[in-house]
Amino acid sequence: MEPETVIADLAAPARRAAAVLAASRGEKRNAALLACAQAIRDDAERLKSENNKDLSRSEEFGLSQAMVDRLTLDDGRIESMACALEQIAAQTDPIGQTIRASNRPNGLRIEKRRVPIGVIGIIFESRPNVTADAAGLCIKSGNACILRGGKEAIHSNLAIAASLRRGLAKTDLPPEAVTVLESTDRALVAAMARAEGLIDLIIPRGGEALIRAVAQAATIPVIKHYAGNCHVYVHARANLGMAERIVMNAKCQRPGVCNAAETLLVDQAIARRFLGDIAPELAQAGVELRGCDQARTFAEMKPAVEEDWSTEYLELILAVKVVEDLDEAIEHINTYSSGHTEAVVTDEVQAAQEFISRVDSSSVMVNASTRFSDGGEYGLGAEIGISTDKLHARGPMGAEDLTTYKWIVTGQGHVRQ
Amino acid sequence: MEPETVIADLAAPARRAAAVLAASRGEKRNAALLACAQAIRDDAERLKSENNKDLSRSEEFGLSQAMVDRLTLDDGRIESMACALEQIAAQTDPIGQTIRASNRPNGLRIEKRRVPIGVIGIIFESRPNVTADAAGLCIKSGNACILRGGKEAIHSNLAIAASLRRGLAKTDLPPEAVTVLESTDRALVAAMARAEGLIDLIIPRGGEALIRAVAQAATIPVIKHYAGNCHVYVHARANLGMAERIVMNAKCQRPGVCNAAETLLVDQAIARRFLGDIAPELAQAGVELRGCDQARTFAEMKPAVEEDWSTEYLELILAVKVVEDLDEAIEHINTYSSGHTEAVVTDEVQAAQEFISRVDSSSVMVNASTRFSDGGEYGLGAEIGISTDKLHARGPMGAEDLTTYKWIVTGQGHVRQ
Repeated sequence: MEPETVIADLAAPARRAAAVLAASRGEKRNAALLACAQAIRDDAERLKSENNKDLSRSEEFGLSQAMVDRLTLDDGRIESMACALEQIAAQTDPIGQTIRASNRPNGLRIEKRRVPIGVIGIIFESRPNVTADAAGLCIKSGNACILRGGKEAIHSNLAIAASLRRGLAKTDLPPEAVTVLESTDRALVAAMARAEGLIDLIIPRGGEALIRAVAQAATIPVIKHYAGNCHVYVHARANLGMAERIVMNAKCQRPGVCNAAETLLVDQAIARRFLGDIAPELAQAGVELRGCDQARTFAEMKPAVEEDWSTEYLELILAVKVVEDLDEAIEHINTYSSGHTEAVVTDEVQAAQEFISRVDSSSVMVNASTRFSDGGEYGLGAEIGISTDKLHARGPMGAEDLTTYKWIVTGQGHVRQ
Repeated sequence: MEPETVIADLAAPARRAAAVLAASRGEKRNAALLACAQAIRDDAERLKSENNKDLSRSEEFGLSQAMVDRLTLDDGRIESMACALEQIAAQTDPIGQTIRASNRPNGLRIEKRRVPIGVIGIIFESRPNVTADAAGLCIKSGNACILRGGKEAIHSNLAIAASLRRGLAKTDLPPEAVTVLESTDRALVAAMARAEGLIDLIIPRGGEALIRAVAQAATIPVIKHYAGNCHVYVHARANLGMAERIVMNAKCQRPGVCNAAETLLVDQAIARRFLGDIAPELAQAGVELRGCDQARTFAEMKPAVEEDWSTEYLELILAVKVVEDLDEAIEHINTYSSGHTEAVVTDEVQAAQEFISRVDSSSVMVNASTRFSDGGEYGLGAEIGISTDKLHARGPMGAEDLTTYKWIVTGQGHVRQ
């Protein structure tokens, strides 16, 4: 079958389901989420045996130990998936809120009301729990979803989707609200991204190549979740003890995630002292430093090459650059950053404000670790990802970001003059 | 020169200008708008003579009388352009607002603050005043813009841009905030739509073919402004006098605009009486009716063909369909509408609520004419257009819709556990 036909055949029932969800009350959507959580728990044995099929092929796919770990579903992780759905149910309903309302001089009532988007396509890789999380956030926000996970997790993803559908079937909401593609053929991803009138939004999460391919192919709106090349800038007037704690935390606490720091910018006024202090500490934590020429005069490190400034290492490597001042730090960030999260450490209000105002990234931290860039830490509840785009949603995306709005105009026979 | 190089050469100074605008205070941007208005007034003679160059070629381009009228710049229209810029200056500053803020239990302060998008590309046709309006809204919202108008108005558009730049040059803001492409080569439009990292958003307004071409080519976000195939549904429990006034207004008051009605849906319960009354009135107003079989048994009209249901006539033609009930009306609208604006006329609260909830269009009118779907009528001030997309901005778009946001996280040395 043509990829376009496969997607159209899945999208038609998804659209009908979306219409039901859009008109549903919040309590029905919450009941559905609880039923899904229960179904996940009931199906734990089946989920583990399907997961085993994926695990048995992990060598064939050449997965690293870390990837195999992310892929594995054990009782604890299955319970976590169920709990996550219950937590989503407990969040505030994003649908139906009045965003803005006014009575016009002519007596017309104008209201801007939050409504679901419709059908959302989500492309992701690796961790199967994303299937439950993403579907849960879509149900919460009244959207149907079409999910496409990676081939290494296909059995797990399909099994989770089957559980969610069984859960939905016990409620008033249609099981077709959740669909996982049975094939991981890349042609289907392109077809999803071109399914105008069938899918309203595509969210690709995962490797840069995948995201770029979706953006290239797409004719429907895409919200990209690119990687995080995050910076910490230690200003001339920073509390150096605080700067040290923040840099250590941003780099080392969990180096494999997108909000970990990848480049350290140090103001030249304090570079000798700060790098002299922190370089041995980072080395002891197993961090490889790659520095600019000036940084290398203050501490032992490998030379950084141009490529280092734009690399998201996702491991214990840190690029280090000495900058002349705040201007050079901002310039460097706006040139090389992926627009995810940047931190400044400073005691000077003026410098913090300049940094906030001029750094063009989704999150800007003042005297805090980049690691806080996260929907949970921001109080959004579960997140669908962290958008590095500027349109519609930027930074951590929660259920509210899976909504749009509708203008409702109420008159008493008003006609225009 | 390659189209990509042309766009890159224009976008680089526009990006630098955008950075200055983003960090500028609202009063500077307002002063710039007033200086632009003054420059337009000062340059009135030059604007008219450049406009004459376009008018003298209108026959060559085969423009209709209506198009020639829209293209013409006289003293009144030049004054209107200047006034529009002054009105934009008088609007509330959309930049810097705190959209959401909270203190987290750990003491972190999380703020979501409204910021400009960056560089916005706008593609439009025909009316040269769009150059001033669009540039004015971009300046107001702290964005630089790259504008591409139609070939039939190229001299007028460039002259207006030159005036705006002269105005900007007298202020603290850079003239490069406003750019009009000197060539109307279509390859430049595609290059704009693929200028990742240079242009942040493309807004195509105009013919469907143009919009589709931009959406196909684009790798950067697009907000589409498709046409309006707007419906009026007269419910079984409508006040028929009110329904008559609304239908006449929606169809006849200004048939050439996107919020005029194109299809009338009449509930079968009142179809005989309503169509018997309104058909002669519409005929007298010069409206050609194209009806379904049932409608044609109640009043004289041509037969409608399938294509009529999805056509935006933009002239005195109205498709007419008798529907069984509210469900069929909603189903018809969600099948054929372009998602712009739909109206229901009813005295029944329940029916109005169903219509509001289930019709999937950007504006839904209850007992009011579709003609009110407009940024000015909604109290948004000047509008950049009416989005038929669901992402980022839906329906009438004002200056606030040309913004994004940034998360600002303030700690006192916070690190993540």
